[in-house]
Amino acid sequence: MVVKNQIKLIKSLHQKKYRNLHGLFFVEGIKTVKELMESDFEVHGIYTTDGSLLEGGRDFQILISETELKQMSSLKNPNTILGVFYKPKAQDIDFTDWVLALDHVSDPGNLGTIIRLCDWFGIRHLVCSLDTVDCYNPKVLQASMGSIARVHVVYTELAQFLEGSERQIFGAFMDGQSAYSTDLRSSGILVMGNEARGISEEIKAICHKKIGIPQFGDPSTESLNVATATAILLNELRRGN
Amino acid sequence: MVVKNQIKLIKSLHQKKYRNLHGLFFVEGIKTVKELMESDFEVHGIYTTDGSLLEGGRDFQILISETELKQMSSLKNPNTILGVFYKPKAQDIDFTDWVLALDHVSDPGNLGTIIRLCDWFGIRHLVCSLDTVDCYNPKVLQASMGSIARVHVVYTELAQFLEGSERQIFGAFMDGQSAYSTDLRSSGILVMGNEARGISEEIKAICHKKIGIPQFGDPSTESLNVATATAILLNELRRGN
Repeated sequence: MVVKNQIKLIKSLHQKKYRNLHGLFFVEGIKTVKELMESDFEVHGIYTTDGSLLEGGRDFQILISETELKQMSSLKNPNTILGVFYKPKAQDIDFTDWVLALDHVSDPGNLGTIIRLCDWFGIRHLVCSLDTVDCYNPKVLQASMGSIARVHVVYTELAQFLEGSERQIFGAFMDGQSAYSTDLRSSGILVMGNEARGISEEIKAICHKKIGIPQFGDPSTESLNVATATAILLNELRRGN
Repeated sequence: MVVKNQIKLIKSLHQKKYRNLHGLFFVEGIKTVKELMESDFEVHGIYTTDGSLLEGGRDFQILISETELKQMSSLKNPNTILGVFYKPKAQDIDFTDWVLALDHVSDPGNLGTIIRLCDWFGIRHLVCSLDTVDCYNPKVLQASMGSIARVHVVYTELAQFLEGSERQIFGAFMDGQSAYSTDLRSSGILVMGNEARGISEEIKAICHKKIGIPQFGDPSTESLNVATATAILLNELRRGN
């Protein structure tokens, strides 16, 4: 039997304000909850409607009713289990490999996809501007699946971070130099911009190189979505010219 | 003043059955409606709440109320204009360039993104299995934006199509040979599979080569989403090794 205060706490975690206040976030679904339990994330509480998922003698695991899960969940159709975890502490950024930076990416699905892409391509550090959507937003976590366990996401004043990094900074622009012919062998920082406006003027002024993805179709085509453009550019970083 | 029958017709076009029955589909928003009006698509009717968008003397353009637009629209917040168009006739497929084929892609957002990617990379023909989501589904059109005007999408019995094509067929698989080291210089057909199950056993047996995207992160990572994998592979086809 879960007490009302726990439901109230978890419901509050749907909002960024309370995730920051409590230093907690939650994920849903067996696969993702398990992945986070097996990672370095510290567990706050596990709530499930399926008793067979409970491991004996661990008091942070609580059996709840379907109704209780529905009250906690961010999903229309809640999925058996919900885990509350402590937000991780900031790590030092390892600049010996590529770092991805996001300037005001605002769509939760895009950020989730980008975290999953970082995981695939072995990018360990994702640096987000303060106005980028929160990576502990339930919709982001839904799209990133368990990848949040392996990609270190940090929010910071982006211009200041880039200026202090002393690394080569590559910005993705519609009119950038072809990524195919840019030398991407040494590591650096790749910056991707906002869905509608791209990289801001302030950050643009800090980028050392503007790179882009060649277009082969009709010139009136829409620009690529930021998540698909990130997929292509991370692949370019890794494949080597 | 729009008559009730027109609202009824457009509402019916939210369903695939009626889109097929009437040979019609609709798109929303100024940019996409304009792009389709300027394309080869034949206009059936244009409905807008903004009189300034109407061009004089064209009787298929009708001024409607916000309430009427809301009744027709597939959007929570309808966007000023809705255009109804005739579905295009099937074209012959030009095999001198790469053709993309989809085996049971079921998410509308993924198909929309893939159509937009084809447009970017100049892939003119997209061949879909009969169980792939309908490209005239409002959610697909929302995600593909105006690209549907430039990419020819055809639905067909995929196995039969591939077998009859006499082209080299490349299937995307998790365990496929690295796309970086596969010779992709001559044209062929690239097949992408279903979101959860990948390419079906039947289609797999028809593929000549299995290709994949090398993974650089933790081996427990989720596979890439089909839209991001398509982005990376179309980029590989176009960039040349």
